[in-house]
Amino acid sequence: MSITLFDLVGTNSKIKFGPFCWRTRMSLLHKGLDFTSEPWRFLEKDTIADSGHTTVPVINDAGQWVGDSWNIAKYLDEKYPEKPTLMNGAEGEAHALLVQELCASLVFPAVIPIAAYPVSKILDEENQAYFIKTREAAFGKKLSEINVDQDTGKANLEKALSPFNNMLKSKQFIGGDAPSYADYVLFGVLKWADVVSSYRPINDSSAVGEWFVRLDNMYGSHGANAPTVRTGQL
Amino acid sequence: MSITLFDLVGTNSKIKFGPFCWRTRMSLLHKGLDFTSEPWRFLEKDTIADSGHTTVPVINDAGQWVGDSWNIAKYLDEKYPEKPTLMNGAEGEAHALLVQELCASLVFPAVIPIAAYPVSKILDEENQAYFIKTREAAFGKKLSEINVDQDTGKANLEKALSPFNNMLKSKQFIGGDAPSYADYVLFGVLKWADVVSSYRPINDSSAVGEWFVRLDNMYGSHGANAPTVRTGQL
Repeated sequence: MSITLFDLVGTNSKIKFGPFCWRTRMSLLHKGLDFTSEPWRFLEKDTIADSGHTTVPVINDAGQWVGDSWNIAKYLDEKYPEKPTLMNGAEGEAHALLVQELCASLVFPAVIPIAAYPVSKILDEENQAYFIKTREAAFGKKLSEINVDQDTGKANLEKALSPFNNMLKSKQFIGGDAPSYADYVLFGVLKWADVVSSYRPINDSSAVGEWFVRLDNMYGSHGANAPTVRTGQL
Repeated sequence: MSITLFDLVGTNSKIKFGPFCWRTRMSLLHKGLDFTSEPWRFLEKDTIADSGHTTVPVINDAGQWVGDSWNIAKYLDEKYPEKPTLMNGAEGEAHALLVQELCASLVFPAVIPIAAYPVSKILDEENQAYFIKTREAAFGKKLSEINVDQDTGKANLEKALSPFNNMLKSKQFIGGDAPSYADYVLFGVLKWADVVSSYRPINDSSAVGEWFVRLDNMYGSHGANAPTVRTGQL
């Protein structure tokens, strides 16, 4: 029985853009588990009510609900120990946790000005109103005021990514020789920006850009083949 | 035969303050290797000339010279695989490397304004002149201009440490359940500030402060018992 991933989308149900959903999507691929992506929109709280969560990612694994990307990764490792590990023991968990904190303090603040406003443009009227209202309340600013031009967005993101960029000059993955959950934590945030932005926000010739493409090309080029605002519905 | 660690000091040879030396010191303690600390001052380049290095830490392990704290940690793991590992495989190495990059980009910029000027006050005349000249050239400013007051220093450091502080709320060590080289990388930078500053730069009641004390109390309270500018020669 396959796992259902409730997966954030806008008007076009093929364009999956949730940063936390991408963390879970890559985790499921990493573990080689069958899953179905169920398009989900901000206001569809009823669909996932039984999970006890009001936002996605949420998974349903043969009747078992699990929500929150971090908890889902831990659940998958515990439930499927025979599959490739996402967080290898306490050190792997601490490693992924540090990357998650760095995303919160360094990377999200550089990605939000690139990605938040474009998200508002790909939602239907009701979801758009909800998204704008909740995000403007959280940020204390109009989305259009948070939004930055392409040059500023790319420069700020490159600066925020510099510790990762430096380490990726000598390692293939944040997890070392192979990706671990630490990799997917950062990848999810960047994939969000890449999917919704009208331009490529990452510098492809940087170490972090090469790492992004490396992950995008894994698992049957799952990430590389995913529809974006720029490609439309592939 | 024991290892000799060439260890940065000033006028008082008991006060060991080198941030990179502390990384190596903790690495040697972690591996449970016998070592002798050989006081070394900036201008004593001749003493370590055979190593091919001009700065410390440098170790001499039964005739084998190794310099640079990162290389020393890798050497110790390779040479003494039967002793507790510092960097557990490629993932542990990638983890420590990320922490090293974060120290370079986030933590050192907050520690230098606390620690650089006090260092100049604990050196003899010739080493002081050398230190001031080289550091002012590197920073492009007078050391007295870089120096900040206690409140500013502590506040800037707390802010820089916030990703570590957040993760250490749920983990005992950066390495997870036990310290790894990733822990010593950050500890060394903070120990430098703690040893040379006239005040305690870290907030002891924060998660990172509690972690610092935890490491200070390991290995026979080696760190906690180390003489500082505040305690003088114990």
